[in-house]
Amino acid sequence: MKIARFTTGDGDPRFGIVDDEELVVLQGDPMFAGFDTTGERVPLESARLLAPVIPRSKVVCVGLNYAEHKAEMDVAAPSNPLIFLKPNTSVIGPGETIQIPPVEGRIVHEGELAVVIGKIAKRVKAADAYDHIFGYTIANDVSARDQMFADGQWARAKGYDTFCPIGPVIETELDPSNLEITTRVDGEQRRHGFTRDLLHKIPELIEFISDVWTLLPGDLILTGTPAGLGGFVDGQTVEIEIDGIGVLSNPARNRA
Amino acid sequence: MKIARFTTGDGDPRFGIVDDEELVVLQGDPMFAGFDTTGERVPLESARLLAPVIPRSKVVCVGLNYAEHKAEMDVAAPSNPLIFLKPNTSVIGPGETIQIPPVEGRIVHEGELAVVIGKIAKRVKAADAYDHIFGYTIANDVSARDQMFADGQWARAKGYDTFCPIGPVIETELDPSNLEITTRVDGEQRRHGFTRDLLHKIPELIEFISDVWTLLPGDLILTGTPAGLGGFVDGQTVEIEIDGIGVLSNPARNRA
Repeated sequence: MKIARFTTGDGDPRFGIVDDEELVVLQGDPMFAGFDTTGERVPLESARLLAPVIPRSKVVCVGLNYAEHKAEMDVAAPSNPLIFLKPNTSVIGPGETIQIPPVEGRIVHEGELAVVIGKIAKRVKAADAYDHIFGYTIANDVSARDQMFADGQWARAKGYDTFCPIGPVIETELDPSNLEITTRVDGEQRRHGFTRDLLHKIPELIEFISDVWTLLPGDLILTGTPAGLGGFVDGQTVEIEIDGIGVLSNPARNRA
Repeated sequence: MKIARFTTGDGDPRFGIVDDEELVVLQGDPMFAGFDTTGERVPLESARLLAPVIPRSKVVCVGLNYAEHKAEMDVAAPSNPLIFLKPNTSVIGPGETIQIPPVEGRIVHEGELAVVIGKIAKRVKAADAYDHIFGYTIANDVSARDQMFADGQWARAKGYDTFCPIGPVIETELDPSNLEITTRVDGEQRRHGFTRDLLHKIPELIEFISDVWTLLPGDLILTGTPAGLGGFVDGQTVEIEIDGIGVLSNPARNRA
């Protein structure tokens, strides 16, 4: 099922299941309230899709998790998964604008498969990892490249408001082991890869991360970006497509 | 005023103003509900103090913000404030146990003055910074030293569950410009400094950080640790004292 968080007009956010050209409206957030429906259906074209989840705690990112990307970055990396954090204030939804701050150097896109945690996960074994997953969405780990190297720590360069577009929906039924990920800027392909090439696979990531940090429902794990460094500028649109989930599209503007 | 978050027996967390040996119970979280009281008073000795706030979004840390500590760390640092994140899942309260994970190398204490944000702060100027502060508390930026260097990124080494003890209270009326900070392990002084030696002062930090990340009420800024590297081990107790706030004390145990 594809779960959307949406609004119509100025209404409060609601949740719905995507059914062809309509949203079947749910009684509450399905992560906590299950999948009971209200009986109402809303045409997709009259809904504005929002970030399908706002993490209450963490956006966990995994760095350098594809061999080709690790090579092109040319930085020292540990053999364990390299994990870091983006704040939940960086999350925006499909169609929302990436605000480019006035910083030196390129702003780059990193299209990634994101795991949405569905159950509290604390020291979970890889064999039990999938029991703790609610679903999958698309994420753009937007980064101010020069600032990553200037600071050494990546939290600022990757944590700006609007630097974590996610969506358009959460797919709850998906085999994540061999999905194609394509990133385009103004329609032109920039990055491309398959999740089969993840150096650290999803069950291993959940075992590793949940040994460090308790993961809460709604927390995200951005699994890493395939090769294809590339930037974008004011006026361009970044589009990330993943098989079985959809297309996440966000325009970029220099912030006022 | 000193604001405590507390529980008695198995009850839900409540908030109170510390009045000598008693807590004057508040109607709700004063950050959102103001300071109206219920009329009830609870003896301090029958209350268990909790982390005075659980950040809804971010624990922002400032690295290398005292000259002597910057020198002893011997790492490259930018001239701007070096900011990074701990997850809210690392927060524990006074008296709670720091769980030491099975990692290589020392676990170190970093006693710090923590700013508690009280109002949404987005691109706030230094001159307006104090308007966005709810109060101040004490924090221990616990760190797995070797893992900081092994990963390069500090999120894991500093983000383990229980690695952010805070408390015992939030002091809402305090001049933070020259507070004495003392860290002791089993009663023996290990770190010592004064907030007058902060390289980047609080108003500058709020201007810098709120230009990157929108700060939400309840977010914390850990302003950095004075000199005095030092570790602690299973069975020891770490105590941090700051003038005008109190003493934050946490025992440490190897995690089961």
